[in-house]
Order: sequence, then structure tokens, then C-alpha cells
Amino acid sequence: MLEKILPCTGWLRRYDREAFQGDLLAAVIVTIMLIPQSLAYALLAGLPPEVGLYASMLPLVGYALFGSSNALAVGPVAVVSLMTAAAVGEFAATGSPEYAAAAIALAFLSGLFLIVLGLLRLGFLASLLSHPVISGFITASGLLIAASQMKHILGISASGHTMPEIVGSLVAGIDQTNLPTLLIGIGATAFLFWVRKKLKPLLRKMGLGPLLADSIAKAGPVAAVIVTILLVDGFGLDQDGVKIVGDIPQGIPPLTMPPVDLDLWLDLLPSAILISIVGFVESVSVAQTLAAKRRERVSADRELLGLGAANIAAAFGGGYPVTGGFARSVVNFDAGARTPLAGVLTAVGIGFTALFLTPLFQNLPKATLAATIIVAVLSLVDLGALKRIWAYSKSDFIAMAATIVAVLGVGVEAGIILGVSLSLILFLVRSARPHMAVVGQVPGTEHFRNIKRHQVTTLDNVLSVRVDESLYFANARWLEEKLYDMAVADTKIKHVVLMCSAVNAIDASALESLEALVERLKTAGIFFHLSEVKGPVMDKLKDTHFLHDLTGKVFLSQQDAFNTLRQSQYRE
Amino acid sequence: MLEKILPCTGWLRRYDREAFQGDLLAAVIVTIMLIPQSLAYALLAGLPPEVGLYASMLPLVGYALFGSSNALAVGPVAVVSLMTAAAVGEFAATGSPEYAAAAIALAFLSGLFLIVLGLLRLGFLASLLSHPVISGFITASGLLIAASQMKHILGISASGHTMPEIVGSLVAGIDQTNLPTLLIGIGATAFLFWVRKKLKPLLRKMGLGPLLADSIAKAGPVAAVIVTILLVDGFGLDQDGVKIVGDIPQGIPPLTMPPVDLDLWLDLLPSAILISIVGFVESVSVAQTLAAKRRERVSADRELLGLGAANIAAAFGGGYPVTGGFARSVVNFDAGARTPLAGVLTAVGIGFTALFLTPLFQNLPKATLAATIIVAVLSLVDLGALKRIWAYSKSDFIAMAATIVAVLGVGVEAGIILGVSLSLILFLVRSARPHMAVVGQVPGTEHFRNIKRHQVTTLDNVLSVRVDESLYFANARWLEEKLYDMAVADTKIKHVVLMCSAVNAIDASALESLEALVERLKTAGIFFHLSEVKGPVMDKLKDTHFLHDLTGKVFLSQQDAFNTLRQSQYRE
Repeated sequence: MLEKILPCTGWLRRYDREAFQGDLLAAVIVTIMLIPQSLAYALLAGLPPEVGLYASMLPLVGYALFGSSNALAVGPVAVVSLMTAAAVGEFAATGSPEYAAAAIALAFLSGLFLIVLGLLRLGFLASLLSHPVISGFITASGLLIAASQMKHILGISASGHTMPEIVGSLVAGIDQTNLPTLLIGIGATAFLFWVRKKLKPLLRKMGLGPLLADSIAKAGPVAAVIVTILLVDGFGLDQDGVKIVGDIPQGIPPLTMPPVDLDLWLDLLPSAILISIVGFVESVSVAQTLAAKRRERVSADRELLGLGAANIAAAFGGGYPVTGGFARSVVNFDAGARTPLAGVLTAVGIGFTALFLTPLFQNLPKATLAATIIVAVLSLVDLGALKRIWAYSKSDFIAMAATIVAVLGVGVEAGIILGVSLSLILFLVRSARPHMAVVGQVPGTEHFRNIKRHQVTTLDNVLSVRVDESLYFANARWLEEKLYDMAVADTKIKHVVLMCSAVNAIDASALESLEALVERLKTAGIFFHLSEVKGPVMDKLKDTHFLHDLTGKVFLSQQDAFNTLRQSQYRE
Repeated sequence: MLEKILPCTGWLRRYDREAFQGDLLAAVIVTIMLIPQSLAYALLAGLPPEVGLYASMLPLVGYALFGSSNALAVGPVAVVSLMTAAAVGEFAATGSPEYAAAAIALAFLSGLFLIVLGLLRLGFLASLLSHPVISGFITASGLLIAASQMKHILGISASGHTMPEIVGSLVAGIDQTNLPTLLIGIGATAFLFWVRKKLKPLLRKMGLGPLLADSIAKAGPVAAVIVTILLVDGFGLDQDGVKIVGDIPQGIPPLTMPPVDLDLWLDLLPSAILISIVGFVESVSVAQTLAAKRRERVSADRELLGLGAANIAAAFGGGYPVTGGFARSVVNFDAGARTPLAGVLTAVGIGFTALFLTPLFQNLPKATLAATIIVAVLSLVDLGALKRIWAYSKSDFIAMAATIVAVLGVGVEAGIILGVSLSLILFLVRSARPHMAVVGQVPGTEHFRNIKRHQVTTLDNVLSVRVDESLYFANARWLEEKLYDMAVADTKIKHVVLMCSAVNAIDASALESLEALVERLKTAGIFFHLSEVKGPVMDKLKDTHFLHDLTGKVFLSQQDAFNTLRQSQYRE
């Protein structure tokens, strides 16, 4: 029982030395990876660098208490940081205390919303985000983030929340480019791409074990951080216009309270909902993939509670919205994390950093952090998916392309809303004009298929039609007209059989239309039958007077209908 | 060709004496019915009485030119008048010139919107209004309208757009009740109810023909109008506080122009869209019902153009939004209207009234008009539908009840928006958690049905599952988990067959989930097969690498799957 509320009580009871070794190694590697990332993502979110560290401490403990994944590494991530900047930027100026307070409020609201969803077991709401929409959203966000970081690489100022704004702003300021910054930026970016693509195979070839090779490769950003700090130190590059991170307050923040300001909360709520859902979808899919590899299970409703607790913790710990990170969780998993305690140990590592190591980062160039972000997000960009989805489904392609265009052209929130709305509308449009097939018997079988696709036998006074959709308000009237027209088009036809094998529901509007159809066909001297009506549909129909008014029969199978209507008394 | 653009050129060419006789008689009867109605509905819309007459002239000609129904009688109707009052009342004070101008702008925008829908052949959008939502909307609007007219019956002032507001306002003012007004109001209401329910049977019993009996009964409101005018005249009741219609300007209005005011247009646009769709849905269903009785056809897209033209004409003729009226169209049809010319003749009759008869209506008590409205709208109220729909479908009931509550409690526009949104969401929720059945063979047939509902044969190493829904983003992940859990729950199972007879589409998200499922089952040593995949679904699958990665086969029929998997080599 206790384990149901606090999953940690379960794994803590079974905890052993071997699990600890796995968790500890994973925590060390993730901590090293997380330090530059958390500084960089705070920068992306428009927040001071230390806020990234704060968002990487308490939230990890919150998730460890309530979450159900053994491998998920929670913390600041790129897409959520971008969404935070877009949301908070509307209500406060970057750098102001109101900005930081609004980011805390956003984390708090996200946390509450996730917990409410989890308690109501509404995790399935996340499934409204179709795969093409998520994929388009991530790709477009990656491009947007990479573009937004170019100003740090060039060492100029630029602003904007959409691609045209950002690009316009970059082009306008390009003559202000700072050469030392550009060299550091390009150097770091090139180095990090090389590390990501080439270093691991090289190390393997040199005889290192896979885990060690991977760990060294993942520490690439740390190397870039150290080298560029030393360059700034050595050559006094900050005097030459290279922008640096500057003073980072040392220590662990006191517990903060989210600002209680109902107007602000109402303003931020829509963004909090979007951030929660996007973060949840991203996170749960990583968690499920990793869990499946070890035959473990992750429950979507439990994940809602875990991420909710993490965000509430972020609010009280002076952070901003967090979620499970993709790359980080894979590293955590590969490094041997066995339980959520790996997350707690990572939090301890980050706490140690915040307490003692922040002075070391004073001379860290912002260009290095920008390079870290660019390399990380470009790996999320998958424009090839557009081509694959185009080949499979035009309507999925439309939803995906529209999401990308809207994210780049209008903004992240507009993009996600458009994508979800469009995929719902396209789904409805398809079911409003369903596929229909006139069917006949495949000779020698009891199988009935489309007369246009198969060699089949039909009866000339019987029209058998299969409608490939549930009958409901959006298609009821249209089907009524269509079936009537098909029936009266050929004067030989005396029976219409509606084959309901693909009809999963008949709503009240469709029932009304069916009644009208039976009546109209009756005046035309045509009998109307049903076949293969599914159990749940039949249960509902049998209490209506539709069955009473039906001029024909309800056949268990299309074969029954065929056999019965073939007999002479039905042939006039 | 010309007939396609202007349907009137078709019927005018075939026009003959017999058609004219039918049209003329219908026009006379409809005119008599329309005079009190048009005055009353203008009152309901918050407009001067003559505007009702104006809305009953040019729009009828506009519809006659472009519409396709031979029986539809266009003009002011109760629900649209109520919606006009709600929409225009937000932006202008009742009785002000701005109010009348906004009503004209509303008609113009509705007309444009209907024409655009018609040209784009988007008539199917109206099918998003499910039958329970329309039915609930009409019932609630009827109650709201009846309540709003009670102030005229009591002779007091009252206001409000929602039921609580109206009732509160009536209760607050009830001590101001004017006795002569109340007597006229109750008398007229009782008389009109008696006419509606009892007069026609009585006349038939006295030996009158059905058409004559009906025409006399429909003239009931005219009798009430004449008698109460004479009462006011004779006893000088207007001196006793009985509110009368007063001076109605004599003559036909000059052509008006809708005010060109972009801000106003933007403000009114959402209401114009709702009014257009509600008016269209009401109208097209009457037109189709009547057309079917004479084996004629009405095209939804043509009706959009006809009603669009009628509303544009209403704007230029000094009127307000119009649509086809239910009772009026039935009278028109029964009286023998053969072509839309009946509408033109009705317009001539109303024009004659506006030119010469308006002085006669000066002493008409508003209570009489209110009685006309109350009796007309209460016939639209169908609370019994709630019970019928409850018995058939709980989700349809929820949509209907929510629509009623929202219309009564918040307003007409909120009601329709909530109803449509709710029916869409309920539809999605249902398809997000589809019905599934484990199936077996009905012995001696090739038919496969639910093992829980039928006596069937199964193979103990094969799990055959039928999913009763298309596979798409909202249910993909859930189905993946569900199918996996079912497959691994019984260790004897070596084959899973997904029977796709009810799967009408597989979108990109679902394809992704199927691929994941195949992979997961493969690790568990279970083969995954498909059966009865529909043609259009197969067409899309065959270009993907899903089929290549599939561990099992795609069987034409479930029977094939059963026969093949029964063979020894599949039984280990």
C-alpha cells in the first residue's frame, strides 16, 4: 500500500550494494554531463546560470520519491527551457526579479497540473499529441534553439521568438561580430560535433571498453568548458569582448516560495499546461523505452505524479520547469543506474558543485555554452521524418509540416496548439467521409470483400455495402444520402444489406438517419438489412424502436444474409 | 449550365398554370401566417416591428433565385431572432440606430459566410452539430424565448439573457403587473393553444376539407391579432397601461447598405458564424424532409447559397438575419407550393401589407405578439428527447444536457459552443479507449466472434484479438500496452493475430506503436500476425518497412489465420 503512494519505499527495501555501485557510477557521469548543460539551459531560458544548477537538485529528489522509472534523469531540458523563455518573456523583462519569480510560478503551476492529471488518471490526454506533431515540434524547436544561440557564437546581441525575427536580428547585427568570441564558438562547436560523432569509435578502436569510451565521449562538453575557461584566463579574452558567465553566487539556495499572485497564475496557466504536456510526453516515452529494455514497467499515471513532484520541488528550490531529458536518461541507463537513487546522488553532486565549484566558472565564455546547446539540439532535428511521413500518410504529413511552420514562424505554443487541433480536425474529416465498399462473396469461402479489389460473387437484387467507420453525427447524414442514392440507382435492387463489421458505434444522430433511410427505402420498395452487427452496438440497438421499424432482418453474418436472400421467396 | 448557377432558370422554364395556382394559394396562407410572426420575431430580436416585415420581403426573393427547395419558407424565425438579440445586444443599446445597423451588419456577415461555405462546398461542417446538440439547443432556446416574453404578458419591464437573469427580473417586477395586459396575454395564449391543439380536429369533424381546416387553424394568430386590436380600440386599453406596437412606418424601405465598420464586423463575426450554422442546419433539415416527400432533392451546398443570398438581401432590405422556418415551410408545402415562386408571391403580400396595412396594427398589444411567440416556441420544446437519448446513449445525453444547461444558464452562444466541443471530445474519448474482443470461430462457419458472447472454438497457443476502432494517435500507445499485456499474460501463447475487420485506418503514430509491439513480442518469443486488413489500409502498409519487420503473416481472412496456425509446424 505504502509502495503505491511512494514507490521509493519499494525499491529502498530491496536496495543492495550492487545497486548502489551502479547508481553511484551513473550519478558521477550524469553529474559531469549535467553541469555545463544546466548552466547552458538556464541561459536559454533567460535565467541566471545558477538557476540551472538549482533546477538540477531538489527536482531530482522529488522525482526519486514519487516517480516510477529507474533510469529517467530529470532536470532542465532544451525544449522546456525554450518554452519557459517564451512564456515568461511575455510578462516580465529578462534579468528582472519578476522574470525569475514568474519562472518559479510556472514550475509550480506545471507541477500542480501534472499532479492533478495523475490523481485523475488522465495521462491519456497526452495521447492527443500525435507522433508526427511531437516529431515536428521537436525538430522545429531544435532549429529555433540553435538559431537563438547563434548570437552567443557571434558575440552580438539579437532577440526574437520566431525564426524570421531571430534571423533578421542576427543579420542586422552581424557586422558587430566579435572575432575572439567567434573563434571560441566555432572551435567549441566543431570540437563537440567531433566528440559526438567520432571520439567514441576512435576510443573503442584504441581498445577502451564501451562504457569507458562512452563516458569519456560524454565528458566532451566538460573538456570544452575547461579549455575555453583556460583560454579566457590565459589571454584575458574577456577584455577583448568575449562575453563570460561572470559571478555565480556560491551556495545552495534557501527554500523559495512561488509568488502568490492569482493574476500572474492565470496568465501563466495556459503555458504551464502546454509545458507540462510536452514535458510529460517527451519524458514518458524515454522512460518507457528504457524500462522495456530491462523488462520493467513504467506507469503513465505514476510518471505524472513523479514529474509533478519534481516541478513542485523546482519551484521551492528556486528553479524553473524541468522534465526527463532524453540524452541524459540514456547515459544514466547505460552507466548502470538501477534505481531513482542515482538521481538523488546526482543531486548531491550538483549540490557540491553549487557549494564549492561555481567560482571556477566565472570566466566560462557564453559561446561555449551556446555550442553545447547547439550540438545537443541539432541531434534532435529530424527533417528526414517529413519525407518518411509524407510517404505513409498525407494527413499526418500536413499536421507535422504545419506544426514545424507554426513553431518557426509564430512560436512554440502556437505550433503545438495548431498541430494538435489540426490532427484532430483531420481525423474527424476522414471519419466524416468514410471509405465504403460494395462487397461480394469470395467464391468457396464465407468471406466478403470489395467487388473492386477481389473476384467475388454478388446477387443482382441485393446491394451489400460495408461502411468502414462508426456511424456518428459527422457522417450520418452523408451516409444516409449516399446509401439511398446507391440503392435507387439500379432498379433491380430489392434488398440493401449494411455490413457492420467495421461499425464500432452508432450514435443517436446516426440512429435517426438510419430510421429515415429505412423509411425512404421502404417507399421505394426496398428492404433494408443489417449484418455482422457487433455485440456492443447490438446491445444498444435492441432497446430502440429502430429494430421494430426495420423492414428487413439483422443477420449474424454476411454469409447468412447472402444465403437467405438467395432463396426464391426473396427474389420476387 | 445557367441552371447550375441560378436554379430558378430551370423551374421558370417549366412553369405552368397549375404550378402558379399551387404557389398562389400557398403564398396567401403563408402571408397571413407571416404578418403577426414577423412583427413578433422583430420584437424578440429587440428591433422595431417593421423590421420583421422588411426581413420577410427581399430575403424571400433572394432565396427564390438561388435556393433549391421548392417548399422552404424563408424569413425571421424564433431561434435566430433570439441569437440576434444576444449578439447585437452586446454592442449596442436596444432601440438605438446602432442596434438596427448592427443587426443589418450581422445579416450581411451571415450571408457572406454562408456563400463562402457554399462555394467551398463545406456544407458538411454543419454535420458537426450532432442531433442531440441541436435538439437540446432548440429546446433550451424555446424555454428561454418563452420566459423572455413573459414580461409582455405581465406588462412589466424585465431583462436578461439567461434563465436565472430573466426569472429573477420577472420575480422582482411581478408586483407591477398590469391587469388588462395580463388578461389579454393569458386570453391570447389560451386561445392560440386551443387553436393549435383542438381547432383543426373540430373543423374536420364539422366536415371541412383537411387543407381548409388547416388554413383556418393557421390563421388563429391573425384572429387573436384582430380581436385584441379591436379590444384596445373599443376600450381605450392603451390608456390603462396596455403596451401597444404603436406607429409602424408605412411603405417599403429604401435599399440600405450594411455599415462598413471593420471593428464591428470583427466583433460580430463569431456570432454571425454561429447564427449561420444554426440557421442552416435547421433549414436544410426541413427542406430535405419536405423534398423527400415529393421525391425531390435538395443539395446542402445549394441551400448554403440560397440562404446566403437571402441574408445578403436581408441586409440590403433593412432586415436582420433570416433562415427557413419549420412551421411556415410545412404550411407552405401542405398548401401546395410547387416552386420558390411561392416565396416571391409571399414577399409581394408582405410588401402590400407594409405599404397599406401597417396603420391597422397601431393598437396591437405587445402581449398578443408575445402570446404568438410563446405558443410557437413551446411546440419546439421536447424534454422527452432527454429521456429517449438517455436510454440510447449516455454520451449523447451528456452532450444534450450540457447544451441545455449552458443555453439556459450562460447563453445561446455558449450553449452551442459547449455542445459541439463536448460531442467532439466524447467521440474522441470513446475512440481513445476502443472496445476489444478476443475472438474464436463459430463452429461450422468461417465466422469469428467474441468469446464472451458466443460459443466459439479457439486455439490454445493463438490469441486472436479484434480491435473495434481505427488505430490512431489517441489510442495507439494504449493499444500497444494492452495487446502486449494480453499476449504475455498466458505463457502458452505463441501467436497473436490482430483481426483488422474494424480497423479503417492506421496513422503514423499507430504504425510506430505496431512496430514497437512487434519488436517487444519478438523478444518474448511471440509472433505477430494481421488478418482481414482492408484494402485501403493494406495499400498504405505495403510501402512501409513494417511489413518487412513483421514476425508473422498478413492473412486475407481470420479463417486463413486459424487454418494455418492450427497446422503442426506452428504449434512447436
